[in-house]
Amino acid sequence: MLKVLIILIFTTPFLLPQEITNYIKTADEFTRTALTDQKGYKLLEELCSMGHRLSGSENSLNALMWGEKKMREAGFDSVWLQPVMVPHWERGSVEEGILITADGKRELKIAALGGSVGTPEQGITAEVLEVSSFDELRLLKDKAKGKIIFFSRPLDQGLRNTFSGYGGAVNQRASGAIYAAYYGGVAAIVRSITTKHDNNPHTGAMNYVDTLVKVPGAAIGYQDADCLSEMLEKDPGLKINLRLNCKSYPEALSFNLIGEIKGSEFPDEIILVGGHFDSWDLSCGAHDDGGGCIQSFEVLDLIKRLKIQPKRTIRCVFFINEENGIRGALAYGRYSDSLKINHIAAIESDRGVFTPRGFSVESDSLTLLKLQQWLPVLNRAGIEYVQKGGSGVDISRINGTKAKIGYVPDDQRYMDVQHSANDNFESVHPREMELGSAAMAILVYLISEEGL
Amino acid sequence: MLKVLIILIFTTPFLLPQEITNYIKTADEFTRTALTDQKGYKLLEELCSMGHRLSGSENSLNALMWGEKKMREAGFDSVWLQPVMVPHWERGSVEEGILITADGKRELKIAALGGSVGTPEQGITAEVLEVSSFDELRLLKDKAKGKIIFFSRPLDQGLRNTFSGYGGAVNQRASGAIYAAYYGGVAAIVRSITTKHDNNPHTGAMNYVDTLVKVPGAAIGYQDADCLSEMLEKDPGLKINLRLNCKSYPEALSFNLIGEIKGSEFPDEIILVGGHFDSWDLSCGAHDDGGGCIQSFEVLDLIKRLKIQPKRTIRCVFFINEENGIRGALAYGRYSDSLKINHIAAIESDRGVFTPRGFSVESDSLTLLKLQQWLPVLNRAGIEYVQKGGSGVDISRINGTKAKIGYVPDDQRYMDVQHSANDNFESVHPREMELGSAAMAILVYLISEEGL
Repeated sequence: MLKVLIILIFTTPFLLPQEITNYIKTADEFTRTALTDQKGYKLLEELCSMGHRLSGSENSLNALMWGEKKMREAGFDSVWLQPVMVPHWERGSVEEGILITADGKRELKIAALGGSVGTPEQGITAEVLEVSSFDELRLLKDKAKGKIIFFSRPLDQGLRNTFSGYGGAVNQRASGAIYAAYYGGVAAIVRSITTKHDNNPHTGAMNYVDTLVKVPGAAIGYQDADCLSEMLEKDPGLKINLRLNCKSYPEALSFNLIGEIKGSEFPDEIILVGGHFDSWDLSCGAHDDGGGCIQSFEVLDLIKRLKIQPKRTIRCVFFINEENGIRGALAYGRYSDSLKINHIAAIESDRGVFTPRGFSVESDSLTLLKLQQWLPVLNRAGIEYVQKGGSGVDISRINGTKAKIGYVPDDQRYMDVQHSANDNFESVHPREMELGSAAMAILVYLISEEGL
Repeated sequence: MLKVLIILIFTTPFLLPQEITNYIKTADEFTRTALTDQKGYKLLEELCSMGHRLSGSENSLNALMWGEKKMREAGFDSVWLQPVMVPHWERGSVEEGILITADGKRELKIAALGGSVGTPEQGITAEVLEVSSFDELRLLKDKAKGKIIFFSRPLDQGLRNTFSGYGGAVNQRASGAIYAAYYGGVAAIVRSITTKHDNNPHTGAMNYVDTLVKVPGAAIGYQDADCLSEMLEKDPGLKINLRLNCKSYPEALSFNLIGEIKGSEFPDEIILVGGHFDSWDLSCGAHDDGGGCIQSFEVLDLIKRLKIQPKRTIRCVFFINEENGIRGALAYGRYSDSLKINHIAAIESDRGVFTPRGFSVESDSLTLLKLQQWLPVLNRAGIEYVQKGGSGVDISRINGTKAKIGYVPDDQRYMDVQHSANDNFESVHPREMELGSAAMAILVYLISEEGL
């Protein structure tokens, strides 16, 4: 702390007070234009009306064509599609979990996890073993054989950061089917990982390993998970009939969508801003990550609306397939390496489009300090901090950047919606989303003017 | 800036690193307990089910009795009601704005402004003069006589802070009827001051002056304001029939509600935390300011749930009548002066119960610096800054405090709901509200332990 303060005092500041004042003026124009036009918000509504964008789906391709058209209409200097082969999994038409008790039947609200195998047509009917962790499953392994394993540990609401809560529960979804199979279980049912205690199931990626049989995995609504838990206490012998006809298909052709504005002074220095264009298939993925893509688009569009000619090239990338394969990120990373593209910074928005809080930066300390000195300017769009931390999955494969930066909005509502039917257009607030666009645009503009 | 940094480096810190670490542990308990129990949120639901709490209403008294009961049940050391005479105005049963055009009639969504006089039973029927400012009205004064003056300037969405936007439009609501009367108008209709462009009217306080005739004032839904504006352009001769039977009654007896936990070491040093218990009458005032009251209650309740015996006395006050008279604040101020009560700090929550951002402090610089050194602890509930600024209306009349502090949540959604039917329980997010309770509890606890 002391060291940092001494550096702050005794080194030349990166910007003079008058320069800060000028940048604040421009920052206010970004903020005003974003909040007044709400163009990104209207585009998101259009995008959301087209349905989900799961990798490999017809929908996702239609949406990509829509995105390409919007980039061309906005007058970007170049717009192109970068081919990427992606996994292609479909939920199918049958998705049923029937609880069978001594008294009768009751339907549970479930959703297959992404990548799950289906069940036989008549389904899997088996008793249920409830566990709250893999450790508990190991202790109870003698009881697991032939059972449906119900992973019931909820997201810990006691943590301030909902991503930390998510992190403490998501291994059940990611690896539950592997552990179930390992101990002789016939399927995995996972309590939805959510902060909202409604009954909408939250899907997400799940994994298999080659050396074990693949058993189906499904998420169950939070309320039904509570109900199942209670009923199991009364009647440990109750059964579930699980029917899924989800299925993996051969890999499909898809694309990263890229658009850019050429820099006037340093065209070879690229500032990348992006999000992932694919979504899960239970909603349009308004927050995850349609909104982040549109914000990235709006960074370039705002620069054009303000008639700014940037010194450096600003590139927007809609990465495909973050949710179940990160093939888009991998392809872009290879492309960047092969052409030795000089990305001086890469910025990602993939934590929802709620009200702005900060930027989380992977860089050396001096670059971080430089970014932190811009805080009075960034604050004009609601940014309160610039600090060391993770950035984003989609930009993780780009080598040689000075800074990888994650846009951090408020996270309190994010896990209410993520990967569920709740992640719809109505859950987005226009001002919150547009302030995020403005915040990212201001950051990109500063990097473009000042370099890193 | 340099001066502050030098002070930071060369003065002894107020807290040692180990003390900070210990406080962070306690802070995390506050945060965890608030987020896990969600007790405040459940209490707010109960309160909201009882309807609005406009000063002088039967409802407001019932809700006060409910509050008193809850404070007693929570085991506060003392709970008492402080009598306050308040204005008593009622909306009445007739509230109608009929647009009369050449083609027919159309109903406008309107709501009387708080304190407005009613109209004659058959209403006021008059042509409409649209203006966007008092200056424009002055210029058009020859056209104003006998007209309904329509103040149509919207809240400026281009400003980042919605309270700034509100501040730039609210004079139309507060003084529109005065200006209308001054220029010979017969009523004032004001475009709702809101960031949400739906059609729910937003009411609020309006003023009269003794020397002018009192003409009625009403808010009109944002969409209907747009529509009225468009139609006036086509047909400047259209009329409105405005009917209101709202009415002021003699002043009524009401109360501030006060509850406290006695300090173990410095019982005469009071840390006050509060909000205003009255609301407007178009909703239950979940954000404005039922939520702020419940958060203040929860500060004391969390301290009890954590079995902390505070060193200083912690007092929760539900002030009555902030919306249209601040009689509660005035009464409490007089009471404090007359007994020379030593309030070392007063904290108010009256900007909604959205996700925490910061604390805004009125104090001397050294006290501010002390509070700022606690930021790593306060941050455990999401507080990002402690800075100089206004605190709150209800605590404004308390003399001799070391610090008056306003709790600042995120403001992006606040003006969507304020003073309208939108300010309902459903607009409150449990985690956002509870983080606010935790943030205020941590601050109060630190002041109680460390003094100011």
